[in-house]
Amino acid sequence: MLTTIAVDAMGGDNAPAIEVEGAIQAARDLRVKILLVGQEEKIRAELVRLGVPFPREKRLHIEIVPASEIISMDDPVAQSVRRKRDSSIRVAARLVREGQAHGLVSAGNTGAVMATSKLVLGTLPSVDRPALAGIFPTVKGRGTVLLDVGANAECKPQHLRQFAIMGAIYSRSILGVRNPRVGLMSIGEEEAKGTDLIRESAQLLKSAPINFVGNVEGRDVFKGDVDVIVSDGFTGNVILKTSEGLVEAMMSLLKTELGQTVVSQVGGMLSVSAFRSVRKRLDYSEFGGAPLLGCRQISVICHGSSNTKAIRNAIRVAKEFHQAQLNERIEADVNLLETTKNL
Amino acid sequence: MLTTIAVDAMGGDNAPAIEVEGAIQAARDLRVKILLVGQEEKIRAELVRLGVPFPREKRLHIEIVPASEIISMDDPVAQSVRRKRDSSIRVAARLVREGQAHGLVSAGNTGAVMATSKLVLGTLPSVDRPALAGIFPTVKGRGTVLLDVGANAECKPQHLRQFAIMGAIYSRSILGVRNPRVGLMSIGEEEAKGTDLIRESAQLLKSAPINFVGNVEGRDVFKGDVDVIVSDGFTGNVILKTSEGLVEAMMSLLKTELGQTVVSQVGGMLSVSAFRSVRKRLDYSEFGGAPLLGCRQISVICHGSSNTKAIRNAIRVAKEFHQAQLNERIEADVNLLETTKNL
Repeated sequence: MLTTIAVDAMGGDNAPAIEVEGAIQAARDLRVKILLVGQEEKIRAELVRLGVPFPREKRLHIEIVPASEIISMDDPVAQSVRRKRDSSIRVAARLVREGQAHGLVSAGNTGAVMATSKLVLGTLPSVDRPALAGIFPTVKGRGTVLLDVGANAECKPQHLRQFAIMGAIYSRSILGVRNPRVGLMSIGEEEAKGTDLIRESAQLLKSAPINFVGNVEGRDVFKGDVDVIVSDGFTGNVILKTSEGLVEAMMSLLKTELGQTVVSQVGGMLSVSAFRSVRKRLDYSEFGGAPLLGCRQISVICHGSSNTKAIRNAIRVAKEFHQAQLNERIEADVNLLETTKNL
Repeated sequence: MLTTIAVDAMGGDNAPAIEVEGAIQAARDLRVKILLVGQEEKIRAELVRLGVPFPREKRLHIEIVPASEIISMDDPVAQSVRRKRDSSIRVAARLVREGQAHGLVSAGNTGAVMATSKLVLGTLPSVDRPALAGIFPTVKGRGTVLLDVGANAECKPQHLRQFAIMGAIYSRSILGVRNPRVGLMSIGEEEAKGTDLIRESAQLLKSAPINFVGNVEGRDVFKGDVDVIVSDGFTGNVILKTSEGLVEAMMSLLKTELGQTVVSQVGGMLSVSAFRSVRKRLDYSEFGGAPLLGCRQISVICHGSSNTKAIRNAIRVAKEFHQAQLNERIEADVNLLETTKNL
């Protein structure tokens, strides 16, 4: 049986065009079955536009699952999650819970996707709180997993310890890092630095069954010397958004500057492939979406401004997540930790 | 009387060469008197190397003040601040306290410089905690003041309110922003987002005598739509170091990529002025050091890897700080806030 992924077709800033195109690419390349969840007419119109008219999508293993409502980026999270029971994200999550799909992918309102995933899919029995795991590009090429990037603004040390275990499993299973080095985000390498949360978490991480390398700093995110960085969701989210903002700012400044003189215009044209390559290296869409680790089932959350490639790669991540039986591993490892920690 | 700045000549990664050169530039350009504090022989050797042999430095209004000890980057902060009573930073701070200098500049061990400044210079009577104010470059050109970037890992809402007042005064007086827009660093613009600290601080900031524009996110640091961003010192320090790391990573990737083909090499050469210009725009040294706002006297802290220009600009900042009578303004405004807030 093909791995089946439910894609929230109505979620992102450019839905459903981007979602449908990403789904078609994934269905073609990745040997997955896709359930496109959302407003049937709009989704069908996109399929036609992209050369996959009815009933040709069947051959690609794409199905449409109708959902009448949409949670927009501006909708208040708590209220819309509770009230919009036929929203595309809610229906996608229900498909996963009922076993019709192995995982879901959404580029919708991040808060709503997280809340719906926790509500409908539930949390793994041993895990206290699911964490959103962002993947950051590094100079060395392989991504750093940073978690939590926004699911839990306030955390306790035992949460960070569970994040560390989950992040290490993710790095090993999906990014192929043999013995992932795990760091704790702080404001200096010295143990005395940071907040009470950091000092207490460092003590817990030392005795956890992971390759804990100690405290790291903001500059370590892009170096590639650690594979997993553990952080509360407030700090992690600030890091994620600061990085996105800075890449945007640099690219925009560079574009302006390269247009200033004829010489630099020519220079810019000749070096365009180098720029593209750097942009690609720093491009989050290469890594697909951010998985919500610790959910009972699979939920991969994409940036609202995701492009086709990001959606396709998020579907790939969801598939690999399923095939690697990541949740079984997380449950086993966290359970072992929680039952033995007081021995 | 010339404004007099005590420069910790032994602080930075490349001390005393960088410090002495930056001091000479400042003395030449800025009409300030400089007290170079540190090991006399080493400082004098640098002065000779830079074409300012004894007694020529007198004409430049440069004096050497001997200090036998050095606090290195690796020294434990609390211990070295307490024990090394003849360290260059300690002597520089003493010169300020005793009225022989109007302010100090140091690129030394940041923790030690902060601790020494607080210990020797003291805190303004109305201010609870001094905050380190970093200045971030933006797409729009004018810098965003982010505070605290590392003096206080853990903060209370009333601290953030004082930071906001101090940041606004700094933005107005030193960066020339008429009515600085002040934002609160959070993980979404909605009031409900963030931590308890953020929610409580937002309420306090609303009633503070500043132009509070609400919550901002990491991506707003480089946009230039707000002039002052208030944050606890843990989050602020993570933002600072993440940004530094990302700029380094991008520049290093770009360099590698531009060397890949002959075409891109030529392209890189032709666009070199554009790169330089972007690097300059993103260069923290343009803004000089970070002032420790809320100290009873003036302390400007530079990055350990500061170059000559950064030292020179930090001296400029210290001079402007003095001439704008910033501390008098901070004390007046914070005092007014603290005495009227319960009316």
